[in-house]
Amino acid sequence: MDAAEFRRRGKEMVDLIADYLENIEQRPVYPDVEPGYLRSLIPEEAPEEPDTYEDVVKDIERVIMPGVTHWHSPYFYAYFPTANSFPAMLADMLSGAIGCIGFSWAASPACTELETVMMDWLGKMLKLPEDFIAGTHGQGGGVIQGTASEATLVALLAARSRAVRMILASDPQRPETGITSKLVAYSSDQAHCSVERAGMIAGVRMKKIPTEQSDKYAVQGETLRRMIQEDKAAGLIPFYVRTEHTHPLLQYSGLRKYSPPWHISYFFCATLGTTPSCAFDHITELGPICNAEKIWMHIDAAYAGSSFICPEFRPLLNGIEFADSFNFNPHKWLLVNFDCSTMWVRKRSDLIGAFKMDPLYLKHDHQESGRYFYTDNSLFRSLKMWFVFRMYGLKGLQDYIRKHVELAKEFESLVRADQRFEISADVVLGLVCFRLKGSNEVNETLLKRINNGRKIHLVPCQLSGQFVLRFAVCARTTESRHIREAWRLITQLAEEVMQELPH
Amino acid sequence: MDAAEFRRRGKEMVDLIADYLENIEQRPVYPDVEPGYLRSLIPEEAPEEPDTYEDVVKDIERVIMPGVTHWHSPYFYAYFPTANSFPAMLADMLSGAIGCIGFSWAASPACTELETVMMDWLGKMLKLPEDFIAGTHGQGGGVIQGTASEATLVALLAARSRAVRMILASDPQRPETGITSKLVAYSSDQAHCSVERAGMIAGVRMKKIPTEQSDKYAVQGETLRRMIQEDKAAGLIPFYVRTEHTHPLLQYSGLRKYSPPWHISYFFCATLGTTPSCAFDHITELGPICNAEKIWMHIDAAYAGSSFICPEFRPLLNGIEFADSFNFNPHKWLLVNFDCSTMWVRKRSDLIGAFKMDPLYLKHDHQESGRYFYTDNSLFRSLKMWFVFRMYGLKGLQDYIRKHVELAKEFESLVRADQRFEISADVVLGLVCFRLKGSNEVNETLLKRINNGRKIHLVPCQLSGQFVLRFAVCARTTESRHIREAWRLITQLAEEVMQELPH
Repeated sequence: MDAAEFRRRGKEMVDLIADYLENIEQRPVYPDVEPGYLRSLIPEEAPEEPDTYEDVVKDIERVIMPGVTHWHSPYFYAYFPTANSFPAMLADMLSGAIGCIGFSWAASPACTELETVMMDWLGKMLKLPEDFIAGTHGQGGGVIQGTASEATLVALLAARSRAVRMILASDPQRPETGITSKLVAYSSDQAHCSVERAGMIAGVRMKKIPTEQSDKYAVQGETLRRMIQEDKAAGLIPFYVRTEHTHPLLQYSGLRKYSPPWHISYFFCATLGTTPSCAFDHITELGPICNAEKIWMHIDAAYAGSSFICPEFRPLLNGIEFADSFNFNPHKWLLVNFDCSTMWVRKRSDLIGAFKMDPLYLKHDHQESGRYFYTDNSLFRSLKMWFVFRMYGLKGLQDYIRKHVELAKEFESLVRADQRFEISADVVLGLVCFRLKGSNEVNETLLKRINNGRKIHLVPCQLSGQFVLRFAVCARTTESRHIREAWRLITQLAEEVMQELPH
Repeated sequence: MDAAEFRRRGKEMVDLIADYLENIEQRPVYPDVEPGYLRSLIPEEAPEEPDTYEDVVKDIERVIMPGVTHWHSPYFYAYFPTANSFPAMLADMLSGAIGCIGFSWAASPACTELETVMMDWLGKMLKLPEDFIAGTHGQGGGVIQGTASEATLVALLAARSRAVRMILASDPQRPETGITSKLVAYSSDQAHCSVERAGMIAGVRMKKIPTEQSDKYAVQGETLRRMIQEDKAAGLIPFYVRTEHTHPLLQYSGLRKYSPPWHISYFFCATLGTTPSCAFDHITELGPICNAEKIWMHIDAAYAGSSFICPEFRPLLNGIEFADSFNFNPHKWLLVNFDCSTMWVRKRSDLIGAFKMDPLYLKHDHQESGRYFYTDNSLFRSLKMWFVFRMYGLKGLQDYIRKHVELAKEFESLVRADQRFEISADVVLGLVCFRLKGSNEVNETLLKRINNGRKIHLVPCQLSGQFVLRFAVCARTTESRHIREAWRLITQLAEEVMQELPH
């Protein structure tokens, strides 16, 4: 295919995409296929000679679409949203064509520089503390990661590196190996499974902090403080005598004898907007504790973060001033297509120091140590942010967030008006957790019926042992009528289920 | 922007992309900007009200293009290639519009299933051993990662998990914590810096195996064997008595007393086609050693892997039958745009077991344990493979590889015909390592002149202490005339440099 044919096929693809998105609500949102469905629809091997483009395009409807879960259908209420906007798609087309890999400044200066400035733009929209803005002289700043999972891992590793440095500075005789296995990280029992996985990857212990329904599934300062104290009491560091210069990470262990296993509390991942119920950890309480104990506080606001561009939701981020790093996903709720997970750190050097590698083939005349940072894995992702921020403007983005929250409130009202149902967690943003009053079984059956109907799609969560349905406003094109239609379907299926099962 | 406007703007963008790629060789390949150039060209904050699309598009030339390193210019000879083809761009447009995140089968079955089948297609093109093909009943199979760096890390972590399991099985009394810090991984001193970084992340020691110019910078079986023996002699595992059932990972340590630090050799990353000189480790020698010692052998063929679809280059992959995992980047040299790094494992369960997490919000009716595996970070990347494999056919892809190798051979001939220059490493595929006979200084100066000229772009490497220029055939549109023009420029600048500097 040459450029001339691409002009033709590209324009056809633009129409195909517009047609797909304009008519998406006609499609069953959740596919009716069995595992393994696709293999028999296509050959077992790649062709020797080229197929025609017409055949490839025909196979989109024949092979692909029957197996697609349509995340951008206004009837998709599962997981959390993934962004999809026309300006972001245009930017992605351009990014793919430029096709530079931004693994150093010289590999494509525009890529690195636009990313740094877009992270400042977004940081200012969120009213982040000045420390997190790169500007021309700042120590902090932002970098785009692929996912919040990656950002959590990067934060945990940077914190690990900082903790090891601190411990060796206080106790230079100590062998470096083995310190990692003494490190303990904390996160909510409501945190995303990727937080636990980050701990596994880094080889540190991850302790889950229990949360309570009565506390709205948020981690309380008091609970974290108690866990740290318990770990202090149990955790005794060998070879160590406390002095006034001893680093806080080590102090608590000084006056006792060695009795393995010992622990060093070093990292806390707070969640703003948990996956199960969109709960918010109390970072104004948690932050000072972490700061006093020299524990790295990372804030994961993967979903909720986008809402902080609205003044009325910005208080949810209060406490950010205590954080070492902060991350959320514009690719969830800020109209920037996947992938674009934005991460800020107070000190760029903490990140760069933890990962720095500089072989000769990456050296160049403008080697900057500490001015920029990079991931191995970046096309020109900042172009999407630039297109979206400019084509919507801050007001347009705020309107978009507010509309989703209003739709969630509308759904909440419908649930509350029906005595058979209950709301299972505060509705703060675009997620409504609800259930039929009654057994888990009846709710599991209801969800199964809903998804088997394929008209709307939801996923469950578990809260205090209860099976709960999550209704997340996801698509850009969801309107009030879709919400009302979804509720009509849910109540109709609930009626059926309640008649069949003892309630 | 609504769908109607997207139809118009999307088509304009298709033309903009075609124009960019058709005329790319008119642009200076390497940008003439200083760090920080971009910030002053755009506002300090995002606009409150939307900008016009016309203004955004105008800024592509004003703000972005002056800072772009044009990776797809036929005058780009730096690093290794990154792929860019029209069929892949069309597939990416579609993938962005569908915009599903494939983190489980139910999240979009087509996404998962096409990926598994495309990995089989590609595995068959490479004539991988049957063990690596998923089929309908295989134990092995492939998964797409973002980069070779990610794939190396995933392999190293899966191996770590397997090693810990093996050790605990042989010695159930041993505490699990702390085992990691005893593990030792090996790679060539020519391996990519990301291999070392993977070791840092996983918290294992990474030992670099020295290579020699006389061995063409390849790791020899004998060298690996000797290093393992030395580590065995020095590495003494406490609390352990050898029996006939003892796992080989532990055996060597059984009969001596505890004397820390001790080591367990567990992972070897072989490279086929190193970044500096495209050297090939001797995996037919190395594989049996790893198998006997129960060391996980991962093969990183990031660049060279694409060439193995040609029968004449497939012998370079001989020894794959000893590997536990294998990875290369179709996004480098197989016309599938970034990101698409393909990784196969002999046992899917090794990967799934190392990372499995299953919260309720990811459960679904077709929960498959072990049939598929996922990354958190995947749009519909297999669509690109499908479009490219079908639009080129295997023969078209082979032709493409062969053309690049021929162009490299043509450049090699030009260098060899000039007595002032020397070839620094065997030219096997599309990379030519060469230098002026003489000091490092004269070669550094030559490279600086070349890049400052901005007509062609190269990066250096170091081989046996010598500063060497790397000439990698990269762009899809590079032709013989570009190679000859590049050589004309290089010799002209060499002339200047040699006149100025004592030779």
